[in-house]
Amino acid sequence: MTSSTVPHWKPAVLEKRAAQHALIPTEWRLPESVLSSPPLSSIDAIRTSGILSSDELAWTEIPDIQQLVTLIASRQVTSLQLTTAFCKRAAIAQQLINCLTETCFDKALKRAQELDEQLERTGKTIGPFHGIPVSIKDRFDIEGLDTTVGWIGLINKPAKSSSEIVQLLESMGAIPYVKTAVPQALMMADSYNNVFGQSFNAFNNKLISGGSSGGEGALVGCGGSVLGIGTDIGGSIRVPSALQGLYSIFPTTGRVPWDCSFLHQHYLVPPVAGPMASSLATTEYFMEKLLESNPWNLDPSAIPIPWRKELATPPTDRKLKIGVVFDDGIVKPQPPVTRALNETVRALRTAGHEVVEWDTSLHVPATEMWNKAVLGEGGVHCRKLCELINEPLIEGMLVGKEQDMLGFEEREKTIMMSMTNELTISQIEEDKYALSTAMLKQWLDSGIDALIMPVVPWVGYKPKEWVQSSQWVGYTAMWNLLNYASATVPVAKADRALDGVDGGKNTEWEGHRVWNKSDAYNHSQYDIELVHGMPVSVQIVGGRFGEEKAIAAAKVVDELMNPTPFHPFK
Amino acid sequence: MTSSTVPHWKPAVLEKRAAQHALIPTEWRLPESVLSSPPLSSIDAIRTSGILSSDELAWTEIPDIQQLVTLIASRQVTSLQLTTAFCKRAAIAQQLINCLTETCFDKALKRAQELDEQLERTGKTIGPFHGIPVSIKDRFDIEGLDTTVGWIGLINKPAKSSSEIVQLLESMGAIPYVKTAVPQALMMADSYNNVFGQSFNAFNNKLISGGSSGGEGALVGCGGSVLGIGTDIGGSIRVPSALQGLYSIFPTTGRVPWDCSFLHQHYLVPPVAGPMASSLATTEYFMEKLLESNPWNLDPSAIPIPWRKELATPPTDRKLKIGVVFDDGIVKPQPPVTRALNETVRALRTAGHEVVEWDTSLHVPATEMWNKAVLGEGGVHCRKLCELINEPLIEGMLVGKEQDMLGFEEREKTIMMSMTNELTISQIEEDKYALSTAMLKQWLDSGIDALIMPVVPWVGYKPKEWVQSSQWVGYTAMWNLLNYASATVPVAKADRALDGVDGGKNTEWEGHRVWNKSDAYNHSQYDIELVHGMPVSVQIVGGRFGEEKAIAAAKVVDELMNPTPFHPFK
Repeated sequence: MTSSTVPHWKPAVLEKRAAQHALIPTEWRLPESVLSSPPLSSIDAIRTSGILSSDELAWTEIPDIQQLVTLIASRQVTSLQLTTAFCKRAAIAQQLINCLTETCFDKALKRAQELDEQLERTGKTIGPFHGIPVSIKDRFDIEGLDTTVGWIGLINKPAKSSSEIVQLLESMGAIPYVKTAVPQALMMADSYNNVFGQSFNAFNNKLISGGSSGGEGALVGCGGSVLGIGTDIGGSIRVPSALQGLYSIFPTTGRVPWDCSFLHQHYLVPPVAGPMASSLATTEYFMEKLLESNPWNLDPSAIPIPWRKELATPPTDRKLKIGVVFDDGIVKPQPPVTRALNETVRALRTAGHEVVEWDTSLHVPATEMWNKAVLGEGGVHCRKLCELINEPLIEGMLVGKEQDMLGFEEREKTIMMSMTNELTISQIEEDKYALSTAMLKQWLDSGIDALIMPVVPWVGYKPKEWVQSSQWVGYTAMWNLLNYASATVPVAKADRALDGVDGGKNTEWEGHRVWNKSDAYNHSQYDIELVHGMPVSVQIVGGRFGEEKAIAAAKVVDELMNPTPFHPFK
Repeated sequence: MTSSTVPHWKPAVLEKRAAQHALIPTEWRLPESVLSSPPLSSIDAIRTSGILSSDELAWTEIPDIQQLVTLIASRQVTSLQLTTAFCKRAAIAQQLINCLTETCFDKALKRAQELDEQLERTGKTIGPFHGIPVSIKDRFDIEGLDTTVGWIGLINKPAKSSSEIVQLLESMGAIPYVKTAVPQALMMADSYNNVFGQSFNAFNNKLISGGSSGGEGALVGCGGSVLGIGTDIGGSIRVPSALQGLYSIFPTTGRVPWDCSFLHQHYLVPPVAGPMASSLATTEYFMEKLLESNPWNLDPSAIPIPWRKELATPPTDRKLKIGVVFDDGIVKPQPPVTRALNETVRALRTAGHEVVEWDTSLHVPATEMWNKAVLGEGGVHCRKLCELINEPLIEGMLVGKEQDMLGFEEREKTIMMSMTNELTISQIEEDKYALSTAMLKQWLDSGIDALIMPVVPWVGYKPKEWVQSSQWVGYTAMWNLLNYASATVPVAKADRALDGVDGGKNTEWEGHRVWNKSDAYNHSQYDIELVHGMPVSVQIVGGRFGEEKAIAAAKVVDELMNPTPFHPFK
């Protein structure tokens, strides 16, 4: 390659990557023999690496954070031991699936030691996360580390202070130790960018980790973190959680503090922060403890509603009424997703719960409105970030340029719209209010406790395929528009014996006459051999400020579908 | 007057006023002898009119709505009797102080009869406002009535459905019977417009009723309503409440449902709805019952926080810590306001409460930011409404044209700003977030339960003077920007013996060297002879989502300052 073909921004990137790699201690590095032909699953590689002791492997494979909290508080394990174990596991994961952006192992280990000494001295923990390492998506600031969000122009601009949620977690004893990978601009369900490259799935390095909290999904998925904090403006917590079999909560705006939520560019559909973990209990523990910490005393946009434990507990005096969406008529879910839903519905009914089909007629207008609202600024923000160092925009990313966003209409559709067009914004706002009112009525009239539906209509993509898929994000994004809390729960694994298309088992799938471009792509890309063994999840929607209701329904589904705990390590 | 000097819009106005007058039954009309030389106080005229029976006078002068609810529920008084009494009183008030815009007496009386029959038949009330007439500011829709908001171009456009808050009140048994006067565009503290003309103060027809909920203040002030619903974007509930000695609550956005709150033009500082009444108990009853009705099931922007009774009750195990602002350094309050504050502070201290002076250094930037945010659209909305019928804009109204809004700087200041300027809006938003964070810190660090301060730095204005006053709305508007709930409580009456400037009693006031144009005007306009006997109120700020805290402190202040209930009828 001659120097003229090397992009002018390449040196900055190479330097950043070298600095990133240099922070991994040599004794935590994998040998070239493993790196050149790693096993499909990063978990296998981690387990056989010899870098973690058997204790360290065991601690990092405990899915319920409360057990770790107890181990530390009762001084059976020190924070230094636990933090070392997670740092090692994260460092190995990084070499295999490229899930991290920033690390601060030294600082984390030092903090762990301080917390151990404090516990030793006082006999008391400083809070409900005392000594527990927590991973943070590279969208939040951690003092002293970059927040590139995948932009080359933001390299070497360390944050002067930490985001509120990081401050709150630290005040409760948590230890930030890594930041996790994202796509450029956060607007893809596949996490790669020009700074750090491609992030891969924890269970299958031929597949993507999802996005935009893809690095977080991969890290938590391989046991490199017991609790990760992601963000979601169209599915960015839920999609990587689904792809890696994680439990997650996408909350209503204002419940989890985030100093970015207020930003004007997002006020029609604000991004929100939420937990990703290998157990439902961990996600609830995060919500409960965070809200006990009075985040509204730190964030002037947080809403003072405590965690309503009673709503998060399934009722004992009655069965649930659950709505179900098998498909939204735009993109037909691939066989494993449909089977997972069918099995879940069957289990619910067998247990005596009522399951009713949900009318999806508001789903398409809601998704169209999300497109207009979120992409309405026409990519101005991205262009500005590109211009910082004249970096190319990643093709196909959802930034609002002219393209066929709504593939199902089979025609080119211009959704570019300028935020400077006041009337258009007011119109979206009025339409959104009307739609919100209609959905509220449908929800209340139906009498459901929660709604179960797909997270995505697919199971896995190879890297860089998603951007070619005439992406339909309707299964998740409409809930961002409406600000309805939802959770993800893994319920099945794709299985070539159950989900194959051969032998006439799936005549419905084989005979499906595709509805539009998005549907056609989704149909054509299905390959059970590629995705065999991958987790399949359902989304459980609880309504506006319905985090607790979603959790209550998720507990019922989880108990029915995962009688032995579902987690990646089984 | 020749036809050429009659404005083209005059016929529409005259027709509207004639229609309005025609809806007052002849037996409720005052004789010309009274109308030509009415007493200063509308209450005196109402009491001596002979139109209300002694029972009707007594019922309409009960300040606590709970007593009326009990009278009806226990069938001591029928809703028809009570509604008739309030309709009469409102109709008389209208002839004296021009406080109404729309009336629906017939419909209200019919509804009262229905509710009486239902109670008779079932023995049950339909809700906590069963059979109680409630007045509504002419900013909300009532099905079948105009919502002109003072614009000629909106005459004869009856609303197709009622606003959510009206629907909720009706569902709880309340009876809407009148809509109340406002200034054009709602952007003045003096309620007059081209459609309905000038509204006057309930106690003194030489003085204004305030604004923008001025008609509501005047109507409740003279006993024509036991509970009125106002709106507030810069002081519009609190100012008329203060001028008429009312208790009121200006709530944080989202607690009281209002389908207008979401409008983009206001998203930086959304207008909110709240109660105005002659007793503190009535305002709390409204909040409590409204929130028990689950307004979030009707309004997709309402926030599901129930009324927290325990926070609204003064603590029994400790005294309060109260911050106090005597003046903000921009406009020095007139002597009755300062005396009222001094007396309140003295009473609090004597009762053992701690009172600390509050640092106002954030108040000026907060008010400047309010100006930019609220007036930032540069009057575009108003111009559009004017254009409907080519109506003149009322001069001096706060609509964001170029003028010296911040008089204290003694120079012309251009605050005109286009909402199309994205960067400016983003900048205000960031500045607002930073200021909100700083204020939250100051508030929490101070450890106060609430803050008491003036509502306005004056006691009364003659009609159309306020618009010439280089208006400083900082005492109220900054809390709109910050979204901090506050209450008003009347604590004193202006008194020529105590607040006169003669005899060297007020050397501080006489010797005051004015700080700026607004201050100079406020100083020069003070005339104790004009305002003698008028109520003087304090504002009690409770913080963000601090309605209950404001009420708790208001209860303490009210008990100390008004050992016999303060209300206009005493």
